[in-house]
Amino acid sequence: MKYIVAFLLFTFAYCDDYLFTTKYIDIPLDHFSFTNNKTFKLRYLVNDSYYVVNHPIFFYTGNEGDISMFAQNTGFMFDLAEKFNSLIIFAEHRFYGETLPFGNESYSSPENLGYLSAQQALADFVYLIDDLQKQHLNSTELEKLPVIAFGGSYGGMLSAWLRMKYPYSVIGAIASSAPIWQFKGLTNCENFNKINTDVLKSLGSENCVNTIKKSWAILRSKTNSTDGKNNVSQQFNLCKDLQNSDDVETLLNWLSEIYTNVVMVNYPYPTDFLNPLPANPAREFCNRVDSINYKDDTGLIQALAAGVGLYTNYTGKVKCNDILQTATSSLGETGWNFQSCTDMIMPMCSTDDDMFENSKWNFQEFSDDCFKQFKVRPLNEEVPILEFGGKDIGTASNIVFSNGLLDPWSSGGVLRNISDTAVAVIIPDAAHHFDLRSENPSDPETVKFARKFHETHIKRWLHKFYLNGNHIYKFKQYE
Amino acid sequence: MKYIVAFLLFTFAYCDDYLFTTKYIDIPLDHFSFTNNKTFKLRYLVNDSYYVVNHPIFFYTGNEGDISMFAQNTGFMFDLAEKFNSLIIFAEHRFYGETLPFGNESYSSPENLGYLSAQQALADFVYLIDDLQKQHLNSTELEKLPVIAFGGSYGGMLSAWLRMKYPYSVIGAIASSAPIWQFKGLTNCENFNKINTDVLKSLGSENCVNTIKKSWAILRSKTNSTDGKNNVSQQFNLCKDLQNSDDVETLLNWLSEIYTNVVMVNYPYPTDFLNPLPANPAREFCNRVDSINYKDDTGLIQALAAGVGLYTNYTGKVKCNDILQTATSSLGETGWNFQSCTDMIMPMCSTDDDMFENSKWNFQEFSDDCFKQFKVRPLNEEVPILEFGGKDIGTASNIVFSNGLLDPWSSGGVLRNISDTAVAVIIPDAAHHFDLRSENPSDPETVKFARKFHETHIKRWLHKFYLNGNHIYKFKQYE
Repeated sequence: MKYIVAFLLFTFAYCDDYLFTTKYIDIPLDHFSFTNNKTFKLRYLVNDSYYVVNHPIFFYTGNEGDISMFAQNTGFMFDLAEKFNSLIIFAEHRFYGETLPFGNESYSSPENLGYLSAQQALADFVYLIDDLQKQHLNSTELEKLPVIAFGGSYGGMLSAWLRMKYPYSVIGAIASSAPIWQFKGLTNCENFNKINTDVLKSLGSENCVNTIKKSWAILRSKTNSTDGKNNVSQQFNLCKDLQNSDDVETLLNWLSEIYTNVVMVNYPYPTDFLNPLPANPAREFCNRVDSINYKDDTGLIQALAAGVGLYTNYTGKVKCNDILQTATSSLGETGWNFQSCTDMIMPMCSTDDDMFENSKWNFQEFSDDCFKQFKVRPLNEEVPILEFGGKDIGTASNIVFSNGLLDPWSSGGVLRNISDTAVAVIIPDAAHHFDLRSENPSDPETVKFARKFHETHIKRWLHKFYLNGNHIYKFKQYE
Repeated sequence: MKYIVAFLLFTFAYCDDYLFTTKYIDIPLDHFSFTNNKTFKLRYLVNDSYYVVNHPIFFYTGNEGDISMFAQNTGFMFDLAEKFNSLIIFAEHRFYGETLPFGNESYSSPENLGYLSAQQALADFVYLIDDLQKQHLNSTELEKLPVIAFGGSYGGMLSAWLRMKYPYSVIGAIASSAPIWQFKGLTNCENFNKINTDVLKSLGSENCVNTIKKSWAILRSKTNSTDGKNNVSQQFNLCKDLQNSDDVETLLNWLSEIYTNVVMVNYPYPTDFLNPLPANPAREFCNRVDSINYKDDTGLIQALAAGVGLYTNYTGKVKCNDILQTATSSLGETGWNFQSCTDMIMPMCSTDDDMFENSKWNFQEFSDDCFKQFKVRPLNEEVPILEFGGKDIGTASNIVFSNGLLDPWSSGGVLRNISDTAVAVIIPDAAHHFDLRSENPSDPETVKFARKFHETHIKRWLHKFYLNGNHIYKFKQYE
């Protein structure tokens, strides 16, 4: 927790918050066509408290949400920046957080929202990195500053792809929990939910998982009547009673996502990433579910609601639950749904082998839902593979793919080495991009090892970078 | 000339023409954003006369013109296809030839024409290659067919970039005379014209070059008056007399381009690429210029006009010269001018050391001209470097960059090895993408060597491809 001490020197600093200067850069709206010359302001956060001139830039490739949320949950970059005298940048992804190219109208039509895409975001980052290098380079020997990309989850996918598509922009990438293979034909659609279930069973209990599996039919049956809808609404403390079958679907999706999230963020100490949570929330969730020795269907729902309450209201300050939202509003769920409908099409399904309600992957239905919601359809399921290569990425270099085996997203992660320098590290007891968090006394040894692994590779990339340029004055520190 | 025999078997075959089936594929207009779901028909040419199932695809990445023009001037692919049992594809570049996404309206506004870009074209090729692989693969052992990209000039740039950006789409690229370094800061703006001049001096004569250098001031002075404009118009046999100073600029540009083209296509046997020309047209051009022992300015223009006549009317069938066009109308000059204004910004200038009228590179003026012509401006001069990396492309693999030293475009070419497998071959006595032409008795030894070099590398890529997949049944032939 060294950085806290450093930050206390800042005015307005308060405990466990990372401080940044907020900056903006004008970026072309469309990097790939020239039908218009619009630009927009992309927000990025800068921390130069460790920066020594001509040292590396650590660049976080922002994902689907307010960038400050990721900036507050990626302490690893700070721990490392101190060692490497690096500049820390967190770049916001277009159409999320405050980076809204069309302001309040950004989500109003496909004509605007259509500029939300992974490819455009990558080009944004290239553009910003170029600008940062020009701002911060001060050397007659170096042509540019070395930049390391960091990212978790979708941000990790972007980090890896940034290195693959624009290897001149970043000398390497740390791609944590980056499911770049969660696409058609690369992983089975049921894998995600199966892992989720297995993890909850092993961290929580078999009873907990069975309760969930049984609940779907019970909830559907109960909510058939108006009285039933009202009862279930009360049991889950919903802000607005369920009115119709669409609301019931929303409730079931909301519950599914909560069961997923509680596993994804199962860190061994209290955190506030998607929601404020205690240490080991998956276990705590099941403890609450299991604490109720239910006898009937109403009791079963009560048991579930107890678990859900841990996730939705650990602080005790939440008055009621909004089923349209499963996490902090900093997460751009609508934007992500749009991306899922265009270039980030990730087939998902459930079977008898997992705790979720059985469901098949039906591309046509999915496409119809997309059209209903956004007036766009995915062209086909293979778009992400045509764009990024699927498993045929043997030319990739200088990437570390890390995946925790307690993370359902490991289903689409890269769990083996791709080439000599694009390598994988598996973290048996880690949840979603745990390794990107700051050092903590509760860290498992395997997470510490993964962070060392990252550090070793970053040193190697930097060593080669400074050596290639004959900049011997500095590379020694990366040996 | 083996292929000619093969082609005589076709109905409608006639001498020295390569035959193709014309096909079309529906392609998304915008691969990178999702503001609309428009598609267009991309034309491509197929020759399967040598193809044996599960053998490689040779894929020409079309450049700025009608694809059949390139298909008729890239015989090397046919010579090689016979050896490798390959399928031959020539893919047309969007907005050229018949591939007009908005039909007659394609060039009418930036809203339409803006979709003309190198990045979109690359994605088109990826899309088509994926479709071709699905059409032609017939194996339980192979996951896909190996594809080799070929291209000359801008087409060669696209081949190289296709391999760099989408290495899963093509296993290697033959990038002939591809000036991927003809961008800001990568080569001096005067290099192109300097090489052009040196080559014409060495193949033609010092007198020829001096005559050209002297002509600019004379032409400007002569065309100051109406009588002078008429005289010059007659001397150059223009279809329409020069009317104003804009016309004079057009004439001077037209002349410059002719002096360039005659060097670019200086092949040692008669060809019909940009225009019908005799063998060694650069020498012939200067022979004509030098044949007139001029005494005054009118005589000097007469000497130049004699040279120009070789280029514009070698067949003797042209009635008059249109200064709005310097080559076959199959070349999409307007489209290329648009690309020069957006992502293919190539700074050019002339000095006392070359035969052209002195001119400085002035980005602002260039940008203003772009806006006047197309209602677009280049964002900045660095766009192509941000997109494709400039000289920082050390991660590139499986590319052969070939450059003839008689080719002015070698100014922006890759003349040294980039990595272990992205290598350069220099052809001392070759003009623009000479190596992509078919075998000919007049071929210099160095051109034959370059073709062998290509073949060796293609064999190596294929060997590795079939070996990696354990497809031992076939790789032996590539050892």
